[in-house]
Amino acid sequence: MANSKYQYVRNFELPDSLLPGTFMVFRLDGHSFHRFSERHNFSKPNDVRALQLMDRAAQDLMEEYGDIVLGFGESDEFSFLLRKSTTLYNRRNVKIVSTLTSLFTASYVFHWPTYFPDTSLQYPPSFDGRIVLYPGDKFIRDYFAWRQADTHINNLYNTVFWALVQQGGQTTTEAHATLRGTFSKQKHEILFSQFGINYNQLDERYRKGSVLVREEVRTKRRAKGKAKVKTRIELLHCDIISDDFWKDRSGLLQD
Amino acid sequence: MANSKYQYVRNFELPDSLLPGTFMVFRLDGHSFHRFSERHNFSKPNDVRALQLMDRAAQDLMEEYGDIVLGFGESDEFSFLLRKSTTLYNRRNVKIVSTLTSLFTASYVFHWPTYFPDTSLQYPPSFDGRIVLYPGDKFIRDYFAWRQADTHINNLYNTVFWALVQQGGQTTTEAHATLRGTFSKQKHEILFSQFGINYNQLDERYRKGSVLVREEVRTKRRAKGKAKVKTRIELLHCDIISDDFWKDRSGLLQD
Amino acid sequence: MANSKYQYVRNFELPDSLLPGTFMVFRLDGHSFHRFSERHNFSKPNDVRALQLMDRAAQDLMEEYGDIVLGFGESDEFSFLLRKSTTLYNRRNVKIVSTLTSLFTASYVFHWPTYFPDTSLQYPPSFDGRIVLYPGDKFIRDYFAWRQADTHINNLYNTVFWALVQQGGQTTTEAHATLRGTFSKQKHEILFSQFGINYNQLDERYRKGSVLVREEVRTKRRAKGKAKVKTRIELLHCDIISDDFWKDRSGLLQD
Amino acid sequence: MANSKYQYVRNFELPDSLLPGTFMVFRLDGHSFHRFSERHNFSKPNDVRALQLMDRAAQDLMEEYGDIVLGFGESDEFSFLLRKSTTLYNRRNVKIVSTLTSLFTASYVFHWPTYFPDTSLQYPPSFDGRIVLYPGDKFIRDYFAWRQADTHINNLYNTVFWALVQQGGQTTTEAHATLRGTFSKQKHEILFSQFGINYNQLDERYRKGSVLVREEVRTKRRAKGKAKVKTRIELLHCDIISDDFWKDRSGLLQD
Repeated sequence: MANSKYQYVRNFELPDSLLPGTFMVFRLDGHSFHRFSERHNFSKPNDVRALQLMDRAAQDLMEEYGDIVLGFGESDEFSFLLRKSTTLYNRRNVKIVSTLTSLFTASYVFHWPTYFPDTSLQYPPSFDGRIVLYPGDKFIRDYFAWRQADTHINNLYNTVFWALVQQGGQTTTEAHATLRGTFSKQKHEILFSQFGINYNQLDERYRKGSVLVREEVRTKRRAKGKAKVKTRIELLHCDIISDDFWKDRSGLLQD
Repeated sequence: MANSKYQYVRNFELPDSLLPGTFMVFRLDGHSFHRFSERHNFSKPNDVRALQLMDRAAQDLMEEYGDIVLGFGESDEFSFLLRKSTTLYNRRNVKIVSTLTSLFTASYVFHWPTYFPDTSLQYPPSFDGRIVLYPGDKFIRDYFAWRQADTHINNLYNTVFWALVQQGGQTTTEAHATLRGTFSKQKHEILFSQFGINYNQLDERYRKGSVLVREEVRTKRRAKGKAKVKTRIELLHCDIISDDFWKDRSGLLQD
Repeated sequence: MANSKYQYVRNFELPDSLLPGTFMVFRLDGHSFHRFSERHNFSKPNDVRALQLMDRAAQDLMEEYGDIVLGFGESDEFSFLLRKSTTLYNRRNVKIVSTLTSLFTASYVFHWPTYFPDTSLQYPPSFDGRIVLYPGDKFIRDYFAWRQADTHINNLYNTVFWALVQQGGQTTTEAHATLRGTFSKQKHEILFSQFGINYNQLDERYRKGSVLVREEVRTKRRAKGKAKVKTRIELLHCDIISDDFWKDRSGLLQD
Repeated sequence: MANSKYQYVRNFELPDSLLPGTFMVFRLDGHSFHRFSERHNFSKPNDVRALQLMDRAAQDLMEEYGDIVLGFGESDEFSFLLRKSTTLYNRRNVKIVSTLTSLFTASYVFHWPTYFPDTSLQYPPSFDGRIVLYPGDKFIRDYFAWRQADTHINNLYNTVFWALVQQGGQTTTEAHATLRGTFSKQKHEILFSQFGINYNQLDERYRKGSVLVREEVRTKRRAKGKAKVKTRIELLHCDIISDDFWKDRSGLLQD
């Protein structure tokens, strides 16, 4: 066949399988979302439509890929935990990352009109993805704690910052200057004393981020004596740093 | 900071930079596009709307990423050549693949209504991506020759196959049986004698695939004596196996 | 400096650090040791001098590299367990493998005259090395069980095989034919009934391989209230498949 | 078989083949050779016995591995060029590096008594190895130029330094201070005016390093009409930065 003399070029493609028996965390980040959020007039400090759209794309991904057991999102990023025993695409790194990033992106654009019915998409947004391997439960707990602590830190800062700007009349430069060097406690005080905002009463979505967990659904009907386990993706805005979340869901860290 | 005790998890992210001074070929393939094309009633053997949409997404990608100097597409796949000197994202493999796959996908979904005004998108499509490195000009020429030869082989087969089915009244099973073991010449003859089709007069788009080249545009206006080189992406459906294409565009294989 | 214009070639060296928090198993295998053993008239089925020399080189390696906590050797191979927390050479794969393989090899050649006082080394022997990562205790236990089970299987086979040849007068071809398809039990029987050998009474070195463990040595003298932990490498020929070995040495699998 | 339930641990071994069609440079460096040279009383600035021993080990390596076409050594390091078409060990990175480092090391220890008849080896020396890939001729020329320029720079410095210490009576600290900030020309002058040494008349071995090239040997006898090409390793101390060396040996950079 005419093609056969060129096929040797396939030999330059090298394998990139990821270590077996190891947790994969797949993380997506919005590419140039600062500009994207400005062009589409996202509300500050949080735009609930944008966050819900991220959740929706994440949910689509988890519906499609059963080996993703947990998702955590904040702002323009989302992290997903894949079972350590997953053999998705033979654990080929680039294949998994590119396919999952692609589906998330497609879903984001596809569902845009549902969440932004009055704002047409100006240009195609994009995300980058990566997989990081973790060889133990503790690292997974700490990874997700890292992201949720980051959510808290960013959201507290942004909440005070935009209160100073939007309600306090400061310029953005002034607001940054006001906050420079302040501790968490002081930020709470500024919010409460100057703007009457009790930070701890704000929507948990903003303070905790979005947690997507695959929960088993018990089905009564048994086919040939073997109950088929169905799962459903649940959206929560809860604490995932403390033990309780993980104790109640010990399956997350099993094979 | 509360977050700092978790930040060590970042150390598990390992570098994956690609060898410098080496050509990168970035290739995208549609994920489950057999099903996707059926669900959206793509014409057989070729759906010009679907091909034009692929070209459009590829063009968007090349507009955004100046280090892509050549693209070649057929069916639901597209290959792109990045300069060997590119330092895009510090040549980080997964970063490049995921970001480019994401933008292509977003563009595909974004422009869908333009190319399929009467067919609404049923669900988000996805693509997988990969980068293969090639350490020399010859390999690049052979890579693109491989893809274009593949285009030819597939298109000839598909053209006869669908003629047998659509005009000849064969079932798909019968059509495959008719073609089993036939050579190129016999396929041409079936097309001509039974269906009056001269294969070589079919649209070059189908026979040659889509070639996107970045061409320099000479601009008359000089700013401070230094002409700024502008480039424009041109869509061609030409032979890229023979020498002529490459001789006329020696810049493609330079640094 | 004249050299600076060439220094860019260093940029082609890419990082290859191994995943943190993961056990490393470093394994060495003799290169063409079939030929090497023939040229140096190794006794069959086991040459105690050759095995002791392997142990000695392994011990040298463990004396030099404190992060190796366990070694297991049989025939012309040796496996070593490095702590999962080791930061030896920043966990650079090729650096670790090449340096450790080099030192083992040097030690093997260096100590040759001690173990083979009457046989001069005919040519320089070589070994290949590799590191395999394991993300959990169970895998480490199973890795070493795999090697010790292999030792048992090979040694039983070789013991019967060479008895048939050396004492039974069979050719090597005949001996292989005799053993084809036999189970463990049958091999024991041949040994006992034909040659009066009770396999289970053979030297444990041959049946179990060599186990090198780093044991803590309690030192009485305390410097400034803080006892310095000294370690010593112990050579054992014991079972490492069952739980006892690991229960008594829980430190092996800790950080 | 008892062993089969453990064999799954082999699946953790991941492929590491190097990009085809690309030059490999394999480099060895002595591990802690500062200490090693002191313990064995190497002459300063150069010990001809130690250099000859390095050359000998390098030659052994090239005799054994026919795909190494060029070697370059200085001090306690040696670099080797492997053909870009080599398929040695299926281009497995760690396999190649470890085996070659091992053989070089073994040869170094094996031949020690020949080059140091009056100095017994105190302990086993070791080397680390690595492979760097280069995707073009120019990079290979520049790599070897880099090493030879380094040889020149180091040797000039060391020659003056040890003249100041050994003949000039300076301490090592003083000698370093004397040389701080001096240019090449000034170092030449110190050598000539203070010690009567014309640097350019020193042994080329020290100024140029050791070049090992595989040269074809024409053999008259033809077996069955097909001349078998024999090769011989030649030791040179010549310039490898300028064009001449490469023009005369165009085969070095071919497939």
